Amino acid sequence: MMKDVLNKKDFQVIKEGITYPQGIKAAGVKCGIRFNKKDLTLIYSEKVADAWGTFTTNKFKAAPLVVTEKNLSLSKGKLQAVLINSGIANACTGDKGLKDTWETVNYVSEGLKIKKEYVAVTSTGKIGEFLPLDKIKAGLEKAISCLDYAGGEKAAEAILTTDTKKKEIAVNFKLNGEEVRIGGMAKGSGMIHPDMATMLAFITSDISIKGELLQEALKQVVKKTFNMISVDGDTSTNDMVLFMANGLAGNKIVDKKDADYYKFLEALQYVAEYLAKCIVKDGEGATKMIEVEVKNALSFTEAKKVAKAVINSPLVKTAVFGRDPNWGRILAAVGYSGAEVMPDKVDLYLKEKIVENGQPLKISCQEIHKYLEYSDEIKIIVDLKIGKESATTWGCDLTYDYVKINTKYS
Amino acid sequence: MMKDVLNKKDFQVIKEGITYPQGIKAAGVKCGIRFNKKDLTLIYSEKVADAWGTFTTNKFKAAPLVVTEKNLSLSKGKLQAVLINSGIANACTGDKGLKDTWETVNYVSEGLKIKKEYVAVTSTGKIGEFLPLDKIKAGLEKAISCLDYAGGEKAAEAILTTDTKKKEIAVNFKLNGEEVRIGGMAKGSGMIHPDMATMLAFITSDISIKGELLQEALKQVVKKTFNMISVDGDTSTNDMVLFMANGLAGNKIVDKKDADYYKFLEALQYVAEYLAKCIVKDGEGATKMIEVEVKNALSFTEAKKVAKAVINSPLVKTAVFGRDPNWGRILAAVGYSGAEVMPDKVDLYLKEKIVENGQPLKISCQEIHKYLEYSDEIKIIVDLKIGKESATTWGCDLTYDYVKINTKYS
Repeated sequence: MMKDVLNKKDFQVIKEGITYPQGIKAAGVKCGIRFNKKDLTLIYSEKVADAWGTFTTNKFKAAPLVVTEKNLSLSKGKLQAVLINSGIANACTGDKGLKDTWETVNYVSEGLKIKKEYVAVTSTGKIGEFLPLDKIKAGLEKAISCLDYAGGEKAAEAILTTDTKKKEIAVNFKLNGEEVRIGGMAKGSGMIHPDMATMLAFITSDISIKGELLQEALKQVVKKTFNMISVDGDTSTNDMVLFMANGLAGNKIVDKKDADYYKFLEALQYVAEYLAKCIVKDGEGATKMIEVEVKNALSFTEAKKVAKAVINSPLVKTAVFGRDPNWGRILAAVGYSGAEVMPDKVDLYLKEKIVENGQPLKISCQEIHKYLEYSDEIKIIVDLKIGKESATTWGCDLTYDYVKINTKYS
Repeated sequence: MMKDVLNKKDFQVIKEGITYPQGIKAAGVKCGIRFNKKDLTLIYSEKVADAWGTFTTNKFKAAPLVVTEKNLSLSKGKLQAVLINSGIANACTGDKGLKDTWETVNYVSEGLKIKKEYVAVTSTGKIGEFLPLDKIKAGLEKAISCLDYAGGEKAAEAILTTDTKKKEIAVNFKLNGEEVRIGGMAKGSGMIHPDMATMLAFITSDISIKGELLQEALKQVVKKTFNMISVDGDTSTNDMVLFMANGLAGNKIVDKKDADYYKFLEALQYVAEYLAKCIVKDGEGATKMIEVEVKNALSFTEAKKVAKAVINSPLVKTAVFGRDPNWGRILAAVGYSGAEVMPDKVDLYLKEKIVENGQPLKISCQEIHKYLEYSDEIKIIVDLKIGKESATTWGCDLTYDYVKINTKYS
């Protein structure tokens, strides 16, 4: 298999995905929920894997997320298979939705001959519709027969809805001479029926690492990557990030915060940030990725408040789409973010420093207009100059196509 | 003057505006900030009026708001004149912006021969630009010479930016046989240069009322009207509501919470709600007003959190624009609002009850689609069924024209 290798600090980036780590197979098949499109993904680890998941904070949590959390708790953080369908979210479906989900867990458990509590399930698509169990059952049989060490690409395809491209990445690095691999895939904002922009990400690894350390690393990484992106500020009922590590790399187990741990952390951070950025770049109707870095805030939470206010502002987002250096909108968002801000101290950078101590510098609007026109990734830096903490968020512009995608009547 | 009289409970609604109360004159003139459009408004009360104002919570508060707050404090809540320019917001303009604003206060004070601290000033338009003092000075002279008891309409016109229509209302009611009048005008979301959607409202009355009661009434009314609307969730640097009562109606002073007070409160609530709704109906690119009522929450604050999450959700707003009965988006917004919610208890109404106890009822999507298509005002009711408090917000749909208006390069 062709590998595209780029040199990064302590790890190598590989054009691969979820099946790159040892002992991970996957399949993506058509089960008939979405018209003539792949819509069912199965991921399988030959060895029971340590696992950790993070789930939407939406109070209307979809049934499969409830079930997967329950299984992770029953199995004390172990998983061996993940089943994902696209097209129907199985959210707001009440008791029947839960019962259906447990039924799909049974199918997977029986089909793969693994314990029920080692099965994670998730769904993305239209809210308020029930799963077609017969289709899922037949599709799963097909998926099991297609499980393959090279199945990552098809798996990454079958979790998409109206995403315009697959989102995959993989890295490897050495721990005590052994190659350790991480692979990931994600889906972003899109829908068949116009519906929630659901974020899903799955990361696998063959690293051998102590459960608590794995959790800590993932929490830290998710906080700074997946939890820092926004397409439209709407938190889905189905958001989920799931990680599995099966230990098949054969490295000496990482059991303390030593150099090996930080090597893993760095690589994991890269994978998560890459996937998170893929999601916003492929945000509904997006033409530009926007990165907002807030510096020198009183705390990370405060920095995040400011960064999120700017990245979610419809006026900032439409200004970027219009290639309009309308920096007043950025400061206004900083001002209403609710964070501690001293207006007379704020510096703002858009290509160059354009506001110093809350007041405009003489700038060339034409130059900034050009920057907004010709750069795919727009960087905004807000320097609050009142503390030492920083936060970075990623989002996208608000365009006619966002409105178009989301107004199409089902 | 032709008066269109509608019968309302304890008050009459009149097709009039800011100059309807006794002793209030106004003018709206062209001073040359906006090309060939009225852009300078002056309101004048023959008698010093009790006044109260509420100002943006944005940390980047514009210079005129800082100055007006200062004057209201110096004068202990008295005002006699208000000067408003459109076209330039005088926000993020630092010390020079403040100095310029005080200069305009001087012009008004000298021109009208009134105390400086009796002058309120405000601005709406592009952030980061300085006021053209010469134009304001010349325009003010013109405005003073045009001050008129019938000047309300021109005044309401000169505060607009890209609003498509004037927003005016007046009411009268009897207190102890004396007619008391209230008049109001507002501007909503719009801009010459694409910029902040600034909300301004001015209400005058000839009622005689004790200062503390006036403040209490206004706080209560603003909280339930102007603070409950949203076009795009962006809080401007220049938002301001200002009220003046000059006592010229000759009613026995309202000095306790008796029937007279509640009569006034009811009429004031009507005026404020009318103006607030005018603002969202004329929201940038809006085709529909959306009203979200949240019932039976644990507190008003919790009810408001839910109502604001729904009214600000880009996915709910685009669904309404697309006439798409996509109720899952509404529940999702309820779920991420941060308020206490029990998903299994939530009922949802869109034309009819469509969700009961968090689960979909059998509904006719076609009927709801028709409702969304043919009603100008879309009503969404969310019944949380866990408490006794409620809140209502007003907003509008998110359309191609919103994106168009806000992407036009200045």
